[in-house]
Amino acid sequence: MLRTKTLFVFLVALGMLAAAIQPVYAIDEPLPSWNDGAVKQSIIDFVQRVTTEGNPYFVPIPERIAVFDNDGTLWAEQPAYFQGLFAIDRVRALAPQHPEWTTIQPFQAVLANDLKAFAATGLQGIAELMMATHAGMTTVEFDATVKDWLATARHPKFNRPYTSLVYQPMLELLEYLRANDFKTFIVSGGGVEFVRCFSEKAYGIPPEQVVGSMIKLQYEQRDGKPVLVRLPEVVFIDDNAGKPVGIQSAIGRRPIAAFGNSDGDFEMLEWVTAGSGERFGLIVHHDDAVREFAYDSGAIGKLDRGLREAPQRGWVLVSMKNDWKKIFP
Amino acid sequence: MLRTKTLFVFLVALGMLAAAIQPVYAIDEPLPSWNDGAVKQSIIDFVQRVTTEGNPYFVPIPERIAVFDNDGTLWAEQPAYFQGLFAIDRVRALAPQHPEWTTIQPFQAVLANDLKAFAATGLQGIAELMMATHAGMTTVEFDATVKDWLATARHPKFNRPYTSLVYQPMLELLEYLRANDFKTFIVSGGGVEFVRCFSEKAYGIPPEQVVGSMIKLQYEQRDGKPVLVRLPEVVFIDDNAGKPVGIQSAIGRRPIAAFGNSDGDFEMLEWVTAGSGERFGLIVHHDDAVREFAYDSGAIGKLDRGLREAPQRGWVLVSMKNDWKKIFP
Repeated sequence: MLRTKTLFVFLVALGMLAAAIQPVYAIDEPLPSWNDGAVKQSIIDFVQRVTTEGNPYFVPIPERIAVFDNDGTLWAEQPAYFQGLFAIDRVRALAPQHPEWTTIQPFQAVLANDLKAFAATGLQGIAELMMATHAGMTTVEFDATVKDWLATARHPKFNRPYTSLVYQPMLELLEYLRANDFKTFIVSGGGVEFVRCFSEKAYGIPPEQVVGSMIKLQYEQRDGKPVLVRLPEVVFIDDNAGKPVGIQSAIGRRPIAAFGNSDGDFEMLEWVTAGSGERFGLIVHHDDAVREFAYDSGAIGKLDRGLREAPQRGWVLVSMKNDWKKIFP
Repeated sequence: MLRTKTLFVFLVALGMLAAAIQPVYAIDEPLPSWNDGAVKQSIIDFVQRVTTEGNPYFVPIPERIAVFDNDGTLWAEQPAYFQGLFAIDRVRALAPQHPEWTTIQPFQAVLANDLKAFAATGLQGIAELMMATHAGMTTVEFDATVKDWLATARHPKFNRPYTSLVYQPMLELLEYLRANDFKTFIVSGGGVEFVRCFSEKAYGIPPEQVVGSMIKLQYEQRDGKPVLVRLPEVVFIDDNAGKPVGIQSAIGRRPIAAFGNSDGDFEMLEWVTAGSGERFGLIVHHDDAVREFAYDSGAIGKLDRGLREAPQRGWVLVSMKNDWKKIFP
C-alpha cells in the first residue's frame, strides 16, 4: 500500500512533467483537415526526416525555416486580392475629402463601380489607387485603418470577415511545423504592413516574421513626437524573383520548406528547393469551385509554369478539392 | 515514515519540475561583469517591471523586443569599423587580379597604406572601396569570404580575432534579456550580410534577427542553379534616421528597449523610448583608454547629442571604465 501510494504520487508528478514537454502533434493526430493520402503523407515524411536525430536529413532547429505565400496560400484571393478590395473601400471612404476624384481616373472608375474603365487604366491605375490609399499617413494611422477595415468589411461572395477566409488545413500545417520547432514566415507579394495587421491573430505569425512588398518610410517629428510616414514610393516588390531577394534580405538564410499557389511563388520554391539536404516545396491548386474558387489562368493567382514543372522538380501539388476535408475554419 | 517518504518523492518530483521551468537568471546572479550601482540596477529594475505580471508596466512576451547597435555597442569599432578593415584586407588580397588598382584611387592609397591619400578620396573613395569588395559575387561566396577573414584576421591593437573583441557585459545583457523572454535584434549601420556571418556564434542572435544596411541583390541562374548576386548599388543605409525605418521594415513593431553608443543610434533610441508604457534606452560611453579606447568626438562612434540629451531623455549612460568589471571575454 505504501509503495503503491508512493508510486502513484511519483507517476502523477512524472505525468505532469511529461505533459509539460509533450508536443501538441503527439497528442492529436496532425493535419486533421487533410485527407489521408500521398500529399498528407509527404508532409509528415518530410517533417519526420528533418526532425529525427540520426536521420541523414536531420536539420538543426535554427535552420528549420518555412516560408509561406499569403494570398491564395494562407487565405483566399478571389474575386481580387483582399488588399486591392481594401484600397477600393478606402477610395469610397475618402471620396468626400477628394471631390476631384469624380473626374479623374482611376478614382472615377472605382467610385462608379466601372470595372472596364478601371481595367483600362492598367498598372498605372492600380499604382495610383494603391498610393492614394496606402501612403501619406503614419505607420500607426495606417495600422489602425487596416485593422478597422478588417473588423468591419465583409467578403462579397462569402459575406464573412476577410480574416475568416483563411485555410483551415494551412493553419494546421503552420501549427504542425511550429510544434516541430520550425519558424514560420510569410513571404507575400502584398504590402508587409498590411499583412502584419492580421498575421499574428490569424496565423500565429508575429510581425517580425512577415516579409512583403514595401513603400518608402520617412522618419519625422510631428507635434514633438517621432513618427514614420508612408511615402508614395515603392521600394521593394516581393513577388516572383523578388521573393528570394526578400527572403535573403529579411531572413538571411535559405529556408528548407516553401509553400505557394501561383507562378509568383515559382522563384521562391525554386530557391528553397535548390538548397542542399532535404527540402520541401508545395503548391496549393485552386480546383474547388464549389467550396471556394477554381482558377489557375487568370490575372490573379495564375499558375502555369508551376503546374507544368512541379512533378519534375519534386514539388507537391495540393488539390484543394481532393486533399482538403474543409476549406475555412 | 510513510508520509515522509511520500512527501520526499513528491518534493523531488516537484523540484524536477521547478528546475525545468526555472529561468537562468534566478540560478546565477545576473550581469556578473557589471559593477553594482545605478546603471546595473536600472537594467534589472526595467526587466523586473516589464516581466512581472500584475505590474502596471508588464509587457506580454511577444512585445519584448530589444534592439542593439553592433559597432561600438556589442563589439569594438576602433581604430576603424571592422567591416572597413575587412574591405582593406580584401583589396590587398584581390590586388593581384586587379593590376589597374596600383594607379587608381582609392585602391592605390589602400595598397600603399597611405591614409592621407585615402582620406582625400572622401565618401566617394569609401563607397568605391566597399563596392569593389562587397559586390560582384553571390551571397554564398560573400558569406564564405567574410567567414574566412573572421577566422584568420587579427585586430591591429589587440592581436586577437575580431569576434573575440565583443563586450562581455553586453553578452551577459543579451543573455539576461533572453532569459526573460526578450527577442534580441541587432540594428546595425554595417552591412546586414556582413554582421550575419558572426551574429549567431558571437551573440546568439540568428540571421533573421539582424537588421542592417543593404546593397541590391539579383536573382539569377548560374550553371543551372539559382544564385543571388550582390550588385554595386546601395538600397538602404541603416543608420541615424534609417534605424527606425529599418526597425519598422524588418520587425514591424516598436521595440521596448534600445542599446547604442553613438549619435548614429540617436533616432533609434528616440523612436524606441517615445513609445507608450515602460521603455529603456542605454548608451555605452567609450571612456576607458586603458582597457579599450576612449573616444566620443572622432569620425567613428561620435557621441555628442546623445551625451548631452541622455539625462533629460531618461537614457542610461554606461561608463565602460566605471560600470564594467571587464571588457572582453
